[in-house]
Amino acid sequence: MPTARRARLAVVGLGRIGRLHADNLANRVPGAELSAVADVDEPVARELAARHGVAYMTSFDELLDNLALDGVVIAAPSALHPALVKRAAAAGKHVFCEKPLGLECAACAEAVAAVDAAGVTLQVGFQRRFDPDWRALRRTLDGGSIGSLALFRCSHRNAEPPNDEAGLGDLIVDVAIHDLDAARWLGGEAAVLHAAALPEGVGATISLRFESGALGLIDVHRHARYGFECSAELVGSAGTARCGYPARRDTTELLARGSVSAPLALDHAERHAAAYIAELAHFAAVVSGAAEPLVDGADALAALRLANRAAQAL
Amino acid sequence: MPTARRARLAVVGLGRIGRLHADNLANRVPGAELSAVADVDEPVARELAARHGVAYMTSFDELLDNLALDGVVIAAPSALHPALVKRAAAAGKHVFCEKPLGLECAACAEAVAAVDAAGVTLQVGFQRRFDPDWRALRRTLDGGSIGSLALFRCSHRNAEPPNDEAGLGDLIVDVAIHDLDAARWLGGEAAVLHAAALPEGVGATISLRFESGALGLIDVHRHARYGFECSAELVGSAGTARCGYPARRDTTELLARGSVSAPLALDHAERHAAAYIAELAHFAAVVSGAAEPLVDGADALAALRLANRAAQAL
Amino acid sequence: MPTARRARLAVVGLGRIGRLHADNLANRVPGAELSAVADVDEPVARELAARHGVAYMTSFDELLDNLALDGVVIAAPSALHPALVKRAAAAGKHVFCEKPLGLECAACAEAVAAVDAAGVTLQVGFQRRFDPDWRALRRTLDGGSIGSLALFRCSHRNAEPPNDEAGLGDLIVDVAIHDLDAARWLGGEAAVLHAAALPEGVGATISLRFESGALGLIDVHRHARYGFECSAELVGSAGTARCGYPARRDTTELLARGSVSAPLALDHAERHAAAYIAELAHFAAVVSGAAEPLVDGADALAALRLANRAAQAL
Amino acid sequence: MPTARRARLAVVGLGRIGRLHADNLANRVPGAELSAVADVDEPVARELAARHGVAYMTSFDELLDNLALDGVVIAAPSALHPALVKRAAAAGKHVFCEKPLGLECAACAEAVAAVDAAGVTLQVGFQRRFDPDWRALRRTLDGGSIGSLALFRCSHRNAEPPNDEAGLGDLIVDVAIHDLDAARWLGGEAAVLHAAALPEGVGATISLRFESGALGLIDVHRHARYGFECSAELVGSAGTARCGYPARRDTTELLARGSVSAPLALDHAERHAAAYIAELAHFAAVVSGAAEPLVDGADALAALRLANRAAQAL
Repeated sequence: MPTARRARLAVVGLGRIGRLHADNLANRVPGAELSAVADVDEPVARELAARHGVAYMTSFDELLDNLALDGVVIAAPSALHPALVKRAAAAGKHVFCEKPLGLECAACAEAVAAVDAAGVTLQVGFQRRFDPDWRALRRTLDGGSIGSLALFRCSHRNAEPPNDEAGLGDLIVDVAIHDLDAARWLGGEAAVLHAAALPEGVGATISLRFESGALGLIDVHRHARYGFECSAELVGSAGTARCGYPARRDTTELLARGSVSAPLALDHAERHAAAYIAELAHFAAVVSGAAEPLVDGADALAALRLANRAAQAL
Repeated sequence: MPTARRARLAVVGLGRIGRLHADNLANRVPGAELSAVADVDEPVARELAARHGVAYMTSFDELLDNLALDGVVIAAPSALHPALVKRAAAAGKHVFCEKPLGLECAACAEAVAAVDAAGVTLQVGFQRRFDPDWRALRRTLDGGSIGSLALFRCSHRNAEPPNDEAGLGDLIVDVAIHDLDAARWLGGEAAVLHAAALPEGVGATISLRFESGALGLIDVHRHARYGFECSAELVGSAGTARCGYPARRDTTELLARGSVSAPLALDHAERHAAAYIAELAHFAAVVSGAAEPLVDGADALAALRLANRAAQAL
Repeated sequence: MPTARRARLAVVGLGRIGRLHADNLANRVPGAELSAVADVDEPVARELAARHGVAYMTSFDELLDNLALDGVVIAAPSALHPALVKRAAAAGKHVFCEKPLGLECAACAEAVAAVDAAGVTLQVGFQRRFDPDWRALRRTLDGGSIGSLALFRCSHRNAEPPNDEAGLGDLIVDVAIHDLDAARWLGGEAAVLHAAALPEGVGATISLRFESGALGLIDVHRHARYGFECSAELVGSAGTARCGYPARRDTTELLARGSVSAPLALDHAERHAAAYIAELAHFAAVVSGAAEPLVDGADALAALRLANRAAQAL
Repeated sequence: MPTARRARLAVVGLGRIGRLHADNLANRVPGAELSAVADVDEPVARELAARHGVAYMTSFDELLDNLALDGVVIAAPSALHPALVKRAAAAGKHVFCEKPLGLECAACAEAVAAVDAAGVTLQVGFQRRFDPDWRALRRTLDGGSIGSLALFRCSHRNAEPPNDEAGLGDLIVDVAIHDLDAARWLGGEAAVLHAAALPEGVGATISLRFESGALGLIDVHRHARYGFECSAELVGSAGTARCGYPARRDTTELLARGSVSAPLALDHAERHAAAYIAELAHFAAVVSGAAEPLVDGADALAALRLANRAAQAL
């Protein structure tokens, strides 16, 4: 029985999310294989390459020039994304780029143009679009049971700040950008009406208006303690759909002082474990011609524009 | 606008459940009014009568002879129930009798015969039949969505023992009798297959076979600490229906150590507050000719027979 | 045993909420009794008076002059509230006034001043403050388990529009005013940052900033179809607390197509049945000197100011 | 960085569960690798071997003789298990054997003796011991928050019969054996008090008594339609712990007719996906000396004895 060749992918940028992608490609992504890893920090790249039994590089150029890759997974710092995307596109490689596509719309637009000119695929890491709960929400909306959308409401909260150096800009452009993309995905084009931030940038609220006339409310928080939550509800003309905050386990203790249930997922890696695998499996399928892109450069640009407007509104 | 006269009822036996019925009749039962209370303990009767502004007696005979009552609510010790029911029937009064109808089937059968001969109504205090959740379970079964019944499963647990002197017999005849009545109500006639008790009679399990071929599993516990629970599920050929263990409030705290929800209802008085009102409202409606009896002497006898068989099986 | 005299109260304005208050006073409110009802529509007043066996009037002046009342419950159209409150205060009667206290701040301030001058009590009908779930939320916040408040989030949705003539103003001043009062009650003083409305005024969103620096997000909807919801969450520095959307029953059907649970409460009367009783019981206790007021004219004025600002922002 | 060698394992018997184990070993089990597959049906073995890029055999003897294996995963028909286990032990291979270890206690005891004599490991496929929810239940019990066990209650229901030829014996020895093992794991040694079956063997109930005096109630059903459920509760002297029936997704639709949530897991493969991986990962760790066995031949024998007694009691 002939087997379809697995897409040969390399991961560039080996911070937390890059290592997660590399681990998934090495062990869990149908249709893909990890061919190499790259990072400017040579010991980091070497260690990870050894763990997965693959090649490593410290230069992106060398990686592109010397290895027979089908595509690259870019997880470098956000500011570097547009240049790396352009470089990969010039080398004819399909690109999976972590969100955000960049920090400035102009650079991102250039990257998208380069990708289009090269005829390669660009998929952006909005993994929520591959989460089973969020996909079910979308199916519910498409299915008509809740009617037409009146309000998109979304809460996005981290238990602990994702890293130490995060500032207010990051809260919007790195965190809330997921919610802005989800808003567009579920409600169509939207504009930022208002945004407000908590002291020290620990959280923010954003109000949206969709072109359809529907409204949107987003809250983000970087230090909610109780776990990682990205819940949403779609209030429609005939009903409301929710996707929630799954507990780590389905267990409950019934005690005299009340019912105690298992904690929520600790962070996005745990909450979205399936989605991170599914998005790369989809990318592999796109690379091999078996699937159409689901979230592309235009989506990334639109989300970044909303994020930048929200950040300005603060 | 003419108003239907309220049924004039007296409560006999002023222990915990008798006082609850009196309080409901005085304040919350549509179509009924509390006319008098009676107990052999004169100070108890006097105090309660003063609180509700009604007459009191220490003799059941005097109560029946001297007051213009439509019916009586009997909440005396269980062993006395059959004699009191017969006496009330002889006086032509409609009877609401707390469960169990008595402790011995022969005496209960005589009481039922007396009621029939007198042409009065006998309603027995299986309040679960008036609970909104349990009634919804019955409607679901009748509606066909879960198909035909295969398994009736029920958990009946008190946070604390209802009183100090309760023994193993009481656990079945006073506590599990609710579940045996519920089993018959939802599944039809049944036989006890097996019963087993925990050390010191703190709990028991009962296995049933319904005439339909369906099975039943009941567990009762008198000291479960976490609250009062009477939950059930009906496993059917096309689906399963559950009614649960309602929390006292619909609130949740999300903390790093997990989710903490409000405790369950503390006891049957809290859990079944609505059912205790509804069963007396129904009795009042029966007394005034506006409704048909829902749970009668034959039901009480059948439940007592099952309870006695389960107690023997232990 | 001497019993405390029940507070003698009359209900003025016999629309839907007025009839509900009258029914509660007649049947369910500890410490109070319904003495009379009044409405300019004589047949309406006569019919309700007959049902409850009390006096009726079509003139508020006559009611105040001729009956020995301890207080009045004002449920007339909102625009009339300030004048009626002033008239009752002048007659030395304690006042329970439905929300809003009025439509214009100046008139309301005059009413509050009149009440203060007369030395009578004014309680405003923000029943959510007496709801067991919302009170539990407040206790959680006070207890410290979730730390200091960062975000107050609240959804307030009716299944069907409360009446036909409701406009956009009503959506804020009549509906969202509950949420604005709840925001103040739980988070302290606040200012409206932004508000937006759905087409045809079917819903709205409001953003708040509390003096503490915390943020608030409110969404209201008048035609959500699925039931009545007034849920909230308090995101704090150490955890989050939620109170939810209680189902009418605690039952579930497990079917091949998914789990189906009982519908939510249909409307505010069903959802807040206990709160409507509790607020009048509290008012009766205040009238009899046994309790302190919990929600007064200053609260009503502050909520109205927020509502008017939100309405202007639309 | 030196990496620990992965345990080389072969799967014998390529029915549904055998193929699942092979797929997990090939793709998802840390510390293990799939070296070969074997089945008497040559096309089946060839096809699966090609898919995973490994060797295949149609003879178990040849497999053991010719390949450098660390252990074998036996998923052949249950009646053949004891002979295959003995053969593998004689070849010095560690053994993972699907449940039940066999159908007759004598043959199983011989197999266990052979394993002991050979000094190899025998792990039996009670995957529930590796399920995160069930493990949490065990931790709760060990942690003391619910006190000492009074009642073990467990429901085990398949949406559809696992295969066509299943009879009543299978319902106990193949299905309920999981619950009997779980009962022993959580409650200690137990005896069957009673068992009863539904017509046509579609379900059964089993009553247990633990040596501690605690009671047990198990219900199994092979055609419950609504999904796969293996839920349990532990009623203890200080509280109760539950593990439930996880839904496939954490989504809800709120509609006028009620709340509709996602269906439960369809079958054991979906419900226990993580447990099936974890049990083989544990086996690999045992094979490599990094972990102690968690569920061994003595456990398998004890569960089989309970199952046989329950089957006889029907």
